Order: sequence, then structure tokens, then C-alpha cells
Amino acid sequence: MIQVNDIMQRSQAAFTQYHQTSPEQRARFLENIGEQLEAGREELTAKAHAETHLPMPRLNGELSRTINQLKMFARLLQEGSWVDAAIDTADAGRTPPKPDTRRMLMPVGPVVVFGASNFPFAFSTAGGDTASALASGSTVVVKGHSAHAGTSSLVFAAIQAAIAHSGMPAHTVQHVLGAGNTVGRELVMHPHTTGVGFTGSLNGGTALVHYAAERERPIPVFAEMSSINPVVLLPDTLRQNAFALAKTYAASITLGMGQFCTNPGLLVAVESEALEVFLQQLGEEISAVQPQEMLHEGILSNYSEGLHTMLQQQGIRHIFKSDVMPSPALARVSAAGFLSTPHFREEVFGPFSLAVVCRDKTEMKQVLESVKGQLTATIMGTDADLAAHRDIIALQTSLAGRVIINDVPTGVEVCSSMVHGGPYPATTDARFTSVGTGAIRRWVRPVCFQGFPDALLPPELQNANPRKIWRLWNNEWKNT
Amino acid sequence: MIQVNDIMQRSQAAFTQYHQTSPEQRARFLENIGEQLEAGREELTAKAHAETHLPMPRLNGELSRTINQLKMFARLLQEGSWVDAAIDTADAGRTPPKPDTRRMLMPVGPVVVFGASNFPFAFSTAGGDTASALASGSTVVVKGHSAHAGTSSLVFAAIQAAIAHSGMPAHTVQHVLGAGNTVGRELVMHPHTTGVGFTGSLNGGTALVHYAAERERPIPVFAEMSSINPVVLLPDTLRQNAFALAKTYAASITLGMGQFCTNPGLLVAVESEALEVFLQQLGEEISAVQPQEMLHEGILSNYSEGLHTMLQQQGIRHIFKSDVMPSPALARVSAAGFLSTPHFREEVFGPFSLAVVCRDKTEMKQVLESVKGQLTATIMGTDADLAAHRDIIALQTSLAGRVIINDVPTGVEVCSSMVHGGPYPATTDARFTSVGTGAIRRWVRPVCFQGFPDALLPPELQNANPRKIWRLWNNEWKNT
Repeated sequence: MIQVNDIMQRSQAAFTQYHQTSPEQRARFLENIGEQLEAGREELTAKAHAETHLPMPRLNGELSRTINQLKMFARLLQEGSWVDAAIDTADAGRTPPKPDTRRMLMPVGPVVVFGASNFPFAFSTAGGDTASALASGSTVVVKGHSAHAGTSSLVFAAIQAAIAHSGMPAHTVQHVLGAGNTVGRELVMHPHTTGVGFTGSLNGGTALVHYAAERERPIPVFAEMSSINPVVLLPDTLRQNAFALAKTYAASITLGMGQFCTNPGLLVAVESEALEVFLQQLGEEISAVQPQEMLHEGILSNYSEGLHTMLQQQGIRHIFKSDVMPSPALARVSAAGFLSTPHFREEVFGPFSLAVVCRDKTEMKQVLESVKGQLTATIMGTDADLAAHRDIIALQTSLAGRVIINDVPTGVEVCSSMVHGGPYPATTDARFTSVGTGAIRRWVRPVCFQGFPDALLPPELQNANPRKIWRLWNNEWKNT
Repeated sequence: MIQVNDIMQRSQAAFTQYHQTSPEQRARFLENIGEQLEAGREELTAKAHAETHLPMPRLNGELSRTINQLKMFARLLQEGSWVDAAIDTADAGRTPPKPDTRRMLMPVGPVVVFGASNFPFAFSTAGGDTASALASGSTVVVKGHSAHAGTSSLVFAAIQAAIAHSGMPAHTVQHVLGAGNTVGRELVMHPHTTGVGFTGSLNGGTALVHYAAERERPIPVFAEMSSINPVVLLPDTLRQNAFALAKTYAASITLGMGQFCTNPGLLVAVESEALEVFLQQLGEEISAVQPQEMLHEGILSNYSEGLHTMLQQQGIRHIFKSDVMPSPALARVSAAGFLSTPHFREEVFGPFSLAVVCRDKTEMKQVLESVKGQLTATIMGTDADLAAHRDIIALQTSLAGRVIINDVPTGVEVCSSMVHGGPYPATTDARFTSVGTGAIRRWVRPVCFQGFPDALLPPELQNANPRKIWRLWNNEWKNT
């Protein structure tokens, strides 16, 4: 029996100390988590491989990315300007006198993080949600994903070692395993919980949003859930690059058995001979891919059932599907068929992509206007294509958190300018991102200090600017 | 019969044009709304005076503030750095190659704004919610408050004149009057609505949040609702300044008949002779204030009933209350009494303040820990007081969006560093503010452009930085 109340009480108690640590202390703590993970690399990747069937090179890469993510937030804290400091000094001569007001971002409190099944490291126990919350000064309670509970426990042990090594409060991070729904609901509903981070299915994310709606005090739930990542293939590039495009997209569609939120599940193009060449070639490339085991039984059966249902929709035609599951799959449908059946807009999580063949650009626009919010939207085109399709680029931009020209959506760069977010159902709040430095914004609120003596202000807001951060000083950006 | 569907369809259609206007165009539009309001000042203030009973000097001041607010957002657009641009350039030599990614904030779509009863200009039809949404590039549908429908219509006419003068799409702003609940629900529920701004009662804001929870697609609802704005009076300043403090706080409590979200409704102090002097003097100062008419019948009856209920709570003692309503009122209760009756934490909207008399600092902390989220929290103290009460300052900071030392909470400066927000029930989302330039953040989402040819990028993200804004260029702040 998990005592959620005890856990959240401890998290709240730890928060009262942890949020008072200096940015430098938190930076060293994050770096040390990375060091502990690096020290455990062999054991961690072996356990994750056993639990998720993901290949070792991918797991090693993902662990490196997770460590780099912790380092990125450590650098963000060391640099310090992320607190968005703004200072408006007093003007006693004005009528009425203008007070001195100074603003910066501060942590909200305990954050609950739900680990994702498809990223045992980067979106789980020490992943982006945890790293960004800890960077902000919030404490964290992780609900580990049951599909890789052993990995999650090992990662948590690394975090505990870092807590001890860095002298952080013992309950800065806590770890919960067990029945997702019951514990998840209790964690989201608890009065001490001030924010929730989730990466997973539409059903899972929606359940958390509904739990949160039952609370007296609203809290932000950032859930990253569902995206079919439309890719528009423009005519000139199809004519010139059909074979190369087929190779590139076959790799993207089948990468990690399609178990990525950014998997290109929808290919949209106007009918042409070149498109036929591309689709045939794409089918052949996909058929040549050696299937791998999927993450767990639940994902495999969801994929099998989802694919089965999708392939029974009216007007759909297989291009490739093997009888042995899990199999990558490719199918096609006319734009008219796509538009008449809402089910085509749903995600099939796995290595499946649906090509929508449009008669003309007008139909292409209708298809794009009909799809829901997305994490990514891609345009493949030559310079001539792009010049002639500014309206399509604008439409794709309106759909997604990230718009890509001439690349694949899989592969999410961890950097300051990244947006891994987007309009619903990609996420529950398009104003935030779960990847990149911007992810910290989910767990902080601005606080305005009015009339404070300099010595009582946080260092970030003191006149002398001891942390040498960039600040908006009487409406001018300065770092002095 | 108001056709909400038609209104929202028009708002969506206008958005597809309006969000493509340049920042300079939108800045001129906002300035012109201000000019139109200035041109109508006499008629506007007269109508507002007739509808709200607010005195003319206050209304003239509020209109000026509203115009200045529009100018502030115009300057924000002209300067341009608010879009939070971040650019990470490509590195083809890395394995795997690093793509070029560039992020900026972009508008979300049509926003619904509910006018507030207590600010016919600054928080209503052309108030902060409308100004910030229009600045972002979002279109606006205003639900005017029925208590000043005539003023709202005149303000809307000024906006329409500015739309025509500036060549903006005709339905960039639309105006709805009528039964609040039914129309409000339809507006919040409509699929084209992408955000909601509200200033008003806890009941009203909670209703909107519940409507939004019924939607399939979640949208942000920023409701600013309820705050009792605790003021801590420390012992040394009470000893030294009891009379001056009484004068200052009597004015703040009764300003505008207490009809401010930031009205100081709770005074917290440790028992002392000086406190008794202060409370007696405060009662006398308040009793000398000439009552004014309240905004409307509903507010008057809510105040009368709220005060009546409050004054019947166990352990409360009147300090001053006239039998003729509306009357300012002051009462006191022991900390033990306060802590044992949750009702004492509720807001009585109007010129009422409750003094909580604590035995010691420990009780004072218990009182502050027991109150809910606040817009403001104030500490009055000498330097010696402040040095001895760092823990009380920290507690107040954890409660509120704005923390004030040695001033009154009433009076909200409109500037970059202002936070008019705070933990629930002050607002529904403490991560945002409804006053100051930060208010624009409620209506925008980040978009990442990956691999875009320079010419296809928004000007804010092009290599040459044609708008000369501050950008995070490969993790360094630059405006070149």
C-alpha cells in the first residue's frame, strides 16, 4: 500500500528547504545525477534492454542524451538569466509616486512526474520533466512506468546517491511504483501537488487532466500525448528525389519500431507519377526493414489492434504489411476518403504511415485543416516548391509546435530553441514545451517584489546584479 | 438571441488575417484605440459615472491608465524582444548532424475576454486582457459587464473606429452583451475559442473553469478572482508609527469603497499596546470616511450579506461598523479564533478589514500558513523588524504574486515587472499575470522552425535580425 499522503507531505517539507538552495548548488546536484548515471551506464542499459527490448546503441544514446539534458539545465542555472528578471525602479517625483518593483520566476512546489514507456531514460525518472523541475527549485515525485520498473529503480538509486553526495534534502526526489491509475489519481489529487508532467497516451493524459479537474485548487497538468506528425511532400521534390525521400522516410517511420511521439504517421501529397514511384519505393524500403520487438505486450497489442482497425476503414489500400506482427506498414487513401472518415486522423502508435493522395493543392489544404494539433509538421520541397507553397507552410505552422523543412520529424534536438509541444491533442497546453530549456517554464511562477530593501531581495534582483544575469532594467536589457 | 457560433466563426476568420499583421501595424492600431478613447473621454467618463457611481477623478485616472496600457503594449511590439527568440544554428559536423532550430512566440487564436464590474475601463472592453491579446496577434471577443453595458458599448465603438482607421479586419474585436451565464458558457465552450480572460468573483471564475473542463480540447482560462491580501504589521513599526499606519491603511481599506482585488482585508500582528493604539486609531480613521455608493446593487447586497455573515462568526469583535450601509467596517479576532474558523479566510468584497491578533510570531506563522493563495502580501516594518522577520517575509512570498514592503497593496503599477496574479484562488494559474507586459504570455505559444531557408522565416528569426531584437543566439543574448 503506497502512502501517497506521506510522500507528498515529505515532498512539501523538502521543498521548503530545497527551493532555498542556490542556483550553483542545484547545478552541481544536476551534474552529479548525470555523473551517477554515467557511473551506472552498464547496469542501467543492460536492465533497460532486458525490460524494453530497445537495442543497446539506442539505449546508450538515450542515456547520453539524458545526461546531457541534466548538464544543459545545470548550465542554464549557472548562467542564470532564465529567471526573466525585470526591474522598474522607483520615481518619487511622479504623481502618484512610482514604487520600485522587481520580478523574477520562482518555483511552484512539489511536481509529480509520470515516466513514459517509450523512453526509459530521457522521458522517465531522471528525464526532462524531472531535470527541469529540479532545476527550477521544485521537488519531484516520480511515478515510474511499470514497463521498465527495474530501470526506473536503478535510475532513482543514482538520484539518491546524488542527493546524498550533494547534501540535498533527502526527499527532494521520491519514487513510486505500482498500479498506475490508483496511485496516479491520488498523486494528482493531493493538495500539496502543484504541477504534473506526463508523456504517454491520449487516454492516460486525459485521465490525469480529469483527475486534476476534480481538485478544488487547479494545478497545471502538462501532458504530451498524441501526434500523427503530418509530412507534406511537394511535387518538384518528388520528381527529383523520389528514391532518396523513400529511403529517408522508411528509416524515420520504422526508427525504434515507430515508437516515437514524432513518428511521421501521415504523408500528404498531390497525385503524380513521381508520387507513385515514391510510394512504391517507400513500401519496398519498409518491407526490407527487419522488425524488432516492441516495448511491451500492451504496446504490441495496441499497435496490432490499431493497425487492424485502421486498415478496415473505408477507402484505405495497403501498400505494405507483413502478416507477422509486429510489422511496419504503409497504406494509402484518397483525400476525399480521408476527409469523410474521422478515424483516419487518429494515431496508430508504431511503425505505420498513411499516405493521403490529393487531387490538388485545395484538397491538400482541406486535409491539413482537418487534422488536429500536432507536435511536428513537416514540408519536403525544393526551393521552387517552397516558393509556390507559402500557404501550405503557414497551415503547417498553425498546426504544430515544431515546423520542419526538408528533414524528418523523428529526432528531437535538446536545446534552447526546441519546442516539443503543440496544440491539443499533442499536449494539454500549447504554451509550454517538455524538451529544451523552455521546459522549466512549466514549474515556475513570476513573483513581484515591491519596495524591498536591496539586501532582502533575491540576488537576481539586487542592484549590483551579483549573478551578472541579463535583466530588463527600466525596459532595457542589461547584464551589468 | 446572440449567435455565438457566428461570432466565433468571424473571429477565427479575422484571426487568419490579423495574426499576419506586422508588429508595427498592431502597435499603431493599439495606439489608435487609445486616441479614440481619449477623443471620447468626456462622454466615456460621464457614462461610466452614471453606471458605476465611481467618482469622476477616479474614472478619469482609470481611463488614462487604460490608454497608457495600450501605449505600453504598442511600445512592447515596437521594441519586439518579447517574442523570446532563441536560435541554435546547424552543425553539420556533429554526429548526428545538428539541425538549425529557431523559436519564437506566436498567437494562439481567438480569445474571449470578460469585462470586470469594478474597473469599467482598465479591466474591461479595452482593458489589459484585450490589449495584451490584440498585441499578441490574437483576435478578441469581449463579453461586456452588464453593470456598465453603456460604457462598454461606447468603448467598443472607439475600438471599431480604430479598426476602421487602422485597416484591421472588421471582426478583430467583437462585442457581446446579455445574460452572462448562458452566453459566457457558449463562448468558453466554442471550438474556435483558444483562451479566456476573466476578472471577477470566485463563483464567476470557477464557473468558467468548469465550462472549459467540459470541452474536448482544453484551453487556458486565466481567471483573477479572490484575494484578502494579508498585511503583516511588525512590532517596532507599530510602536514608532501607529498613527501614520492607521491613516495610510484607513485610506487603502476604504479606497473606492474597498472595491479592489488588492484591498487589504486581513491585518496580522502580535498583541501589544502599540497594536491597540493602531487599531483604535484605524477604527476612528475609517469611521470618518464618507461612504460612497457601491458599483451596483448586486455588489452592495453581497457586501452587506458577506459582512453580516462575517461579523457573526465566533470570536469576532467589531471595532467599527455603522448601521447605515454601505459602511466601511473593521473587526478583530484572536489568532486562535481565526485558525478555528475557516470562514475567516474568505473574502468580503468591499471596505472591510479583519485584524488578527496573535500571541506571538509562532501564531502569526500559523495564521499566514492557513490562508489561501493571494494577489498580494504585505509586510510593514522598520529595518530592525525586517531583519528579525526574514521567515515571515519568506512565508508571505510563498503566498502571493506580489510581495510588498512598507506600502499598501492597493494601486497596481502597469509596468514590465508587475505581477497581478498568484496562487489559487487569487487566480486559476499562478504562472501568469493580467497586468503588465507579461500579460501577453497568456495568449501565445512557442513555435520552433527547423531547417527553414532564411527568407521563409519570420523577420524575428532571420539571420540579419531586421527587427534588431534581443535574441538568444547559440545560448548568448545578442541584439545584433
